[in-house]
Amino acid sequence: MLTNEYYTQDQHGPYKFFELGNFQLESGQALKDAKLAYAIHGELNEAKDNAILFTVMFSGTSKNMEHYIGGGKALDPNKYCIILPNQLGGGLSTSPHNIDGPQSMSGFPEISIGDDVVAQHRLLTEQFGIQELQLVAGWSMGAQQTYEWAIRYPDMVKRAAPIAGTAKCTPHDALYVDVFCEALKSDPAWNGGNYADPHACEAGLKRLAHVFALMGLSTEFYKQEQWKSLGFESMQAMLKGFWEGWFLPMDPNALLAQGKKWKTGNSSVHTNGDLAAALKKITAKTYVIAFEEDMFVPVSDCKFEQKLINNSEIKVIPSLMGHFAMLGLIPDDFSVVDQLFLELLDAPC
Amino acid sequence: MLTNEYYTQDQHGPYKFFELGNFQLESGQALKDAKLAYAIHGELNEAKDNAILFTVMFSGTSKNMEHYIGGGKALDPNKYCIILPNQLGGGLSTSPHNIDGPQSMSGFPEISIGDDVVAQHRLLTEQFGIQELQLVAGWSMGAQQTYEWAIRYPDMVKRAAPIAGTAKCTPHDALYVDVFCEALKSDPAWNGGNYADPHACEAGLKRLAHVFALMGLSTEFYKQEQWKSLGFESMQAMLKGFWEGWFLPMDPNALLAQGKKWKTGNSSVHTNGDLAAALKKITAKTYVIAFEEDMFVPVSDCKFEQKLINNSEIKVIPSLMGHFAMLGLIPDDFSVVDQLFLELLDAPC
Repeated sequence: MLTNEYYTQDQHGPYKFFELGNFQLESGQALKDAKLAYAIHGELNEAKDNAILFTVMFSGTSKNMEHYIGGGKALDPNKYCIILPNQLGGGLSTSPHNIDGPQSMSGFPEISIGDDVVAQHRLLTEQFGIQELQLVAGWSMGAQQTYEWAIRYPDMVKRAAPIAGTAKCTPHDALYVDVFCEALKSDPAWNGGNYADPHACEAGLKRLAHVFALMGLSTEFYKQEQWKSLGFESMQAMLKGFWEGWFLPMDPNALLAQGKKWKTGNSSVHTNGDLAAALKKITAKTYVIAFEEDMFVPVSDCKFEQKLINNSEIKVIPSLMGHFAMLGLIPDDFSVVDQLFLELLDAPC
Repeated sequence: MLTNEYYTQDQHGPYKFFELGNFQLESGQALKDAKLAYAIHGELNEAKDNAILFTVMFSGTSKNMEHYIGGGKALDPNKYCIILPNQLGGGLSTSPHNIDGPQSMSGFPEISIGDDVVAQHRLLTEQFGIQELQLVAGWSMGAQQTYEWAIRYPDMVKRAAPIAGTAKCTPHDALYVDVFCEALKSDPAWNGGNYADPHACEAGLKRLAHVFALMGLSTEFYKQEQWKSLGFESMQAMLKGFWEGWFLPMDPNALLAQGKKWKTGNSSVHTNGDLAAALKKITAKTYVIAFEEDMFVPVSDCKFEQKLINNSEIKVIPSLMGHFAMLGLIPDDFSVVDQLFLELLDAPC
């Protein structure tokens, strides 16, 4: 077990743990003494019908989506009980660096999007007795979980908002994951996943950060020098202060575990590989939200899946932030997403 | 000096050398005993007014654009004298691996797009006595050279076709260069540029190849499994057979020298950094050619510069091959470019 001060209540709290026990994975292995870290905002009402599940993206924690939650916002904790489950392998939940024994570090088993969703389902049903979700929403890998929820548990999900993500990872998106994982693993300090210093892979993490900088924002963002609007003096300052600053504190094996999960994300396993049939299982009222200029998950990929979902609409948000519009660093980006959440929550189901 | 069997007449010939002597570079240094390798197709007529200059892209040689040259094609050697100059640092011309002394390997000086163009100008004027070019065309880094020609020597260039490239490298494009150079340099065998075996950096070259695969083709290319139309059984087979197969034989330092040149490409140095003023110097009839789905140089970047050129038109070519449409691997891609060359050459100037 490695101590990494990034994955703590200080940095990302408050969060709680749900004990999954020896948790059976789709791979056939069981994750020993598995713990699901989650944050909760607002209170579950007596009817247990005011819950919202807000899933978490690659490299993110429940803390990172908190800006969407608050009085006067669509995700209002005075009205809803909003639960944010952290990914298995994401750093707060059971992850390569925070367990002992043969499953630690390079021995961490492969986790799937389906594994996360089954764990979350157990949290909601066993811990809270929830049988109905007003909304499942999530961005990027959070969208993968959202699709998996809506396909696996259609009777529970009244509304769904997969944002800039897919039900089945595309070949190009999978190649992207390979490229940033290779950038990280190129660091000899990674040592096949068995490093002793949690921050040994600085060079590899920097290279990964630069790949994210390349694909994460639009060409126009850089051309118009929009880094100034985010408070950076230069592109180099943003590379260092924003992208490297984001990734450098993190655990390399946790990122790689999430990367594997990302690229194998495929909700069509429930329908023998027939993606259209899988998406037809969705009964939730669904807003498929895409960001213009997104190079991870282009609008065309979102539209492709949306057309296969019965009760769905595509919502395309223009932003020079590309995939990272969801961070809401540009106030307009936040407002548009918040407004779509509000509209969807207000829609009769 | 390293022997690399890739950069030979066998592989890329026939080509000739023009002796530049001790060639003064924009950086202030002089490149010792510099040689410019070039290929020539067709014959210069007596009036010396049937010449076309066809410049070469990153990692390419004069051989790689030969498919655009031939009887019945726009670049017809029965009508035109078509000269293809290889980049300084490109592997065939004077490059890090093929010289001795303090400028070899890690000691290779920084070369600019302007340096290439001045060397090419000397070749054309001193060796051939050419004072007029019917067309200067080039793809990607070749487009950078094309812009530099049209801005630096407007009286010589009657027509210009910069293809999927810019007069001033954009911040995002420069970041792309950084990312693939970092991927290469991440290989410990690179050793700061001082390797003894020309093929020592296989791991780094593979990583670079994967970054090109990521950014070089469109997401739809991969989604539609277009690798099949190129004769590959799987995406992995194309990664290996096409992208790795392309880059693995090459010299790492040569690629890095070209990378530096690419990211510093900026024809506005002639007008104190005023790009609009630089582009206004172009008198050539100009087709700015862009490829839809190009992630290196998006259509928007090409349009931005085209609007600043007096006698110009934008020509956008749809292709799932993105930036690499120019390779003409899909027959339609070749035909459209060939047709545009023909149209431009037929246009009165």
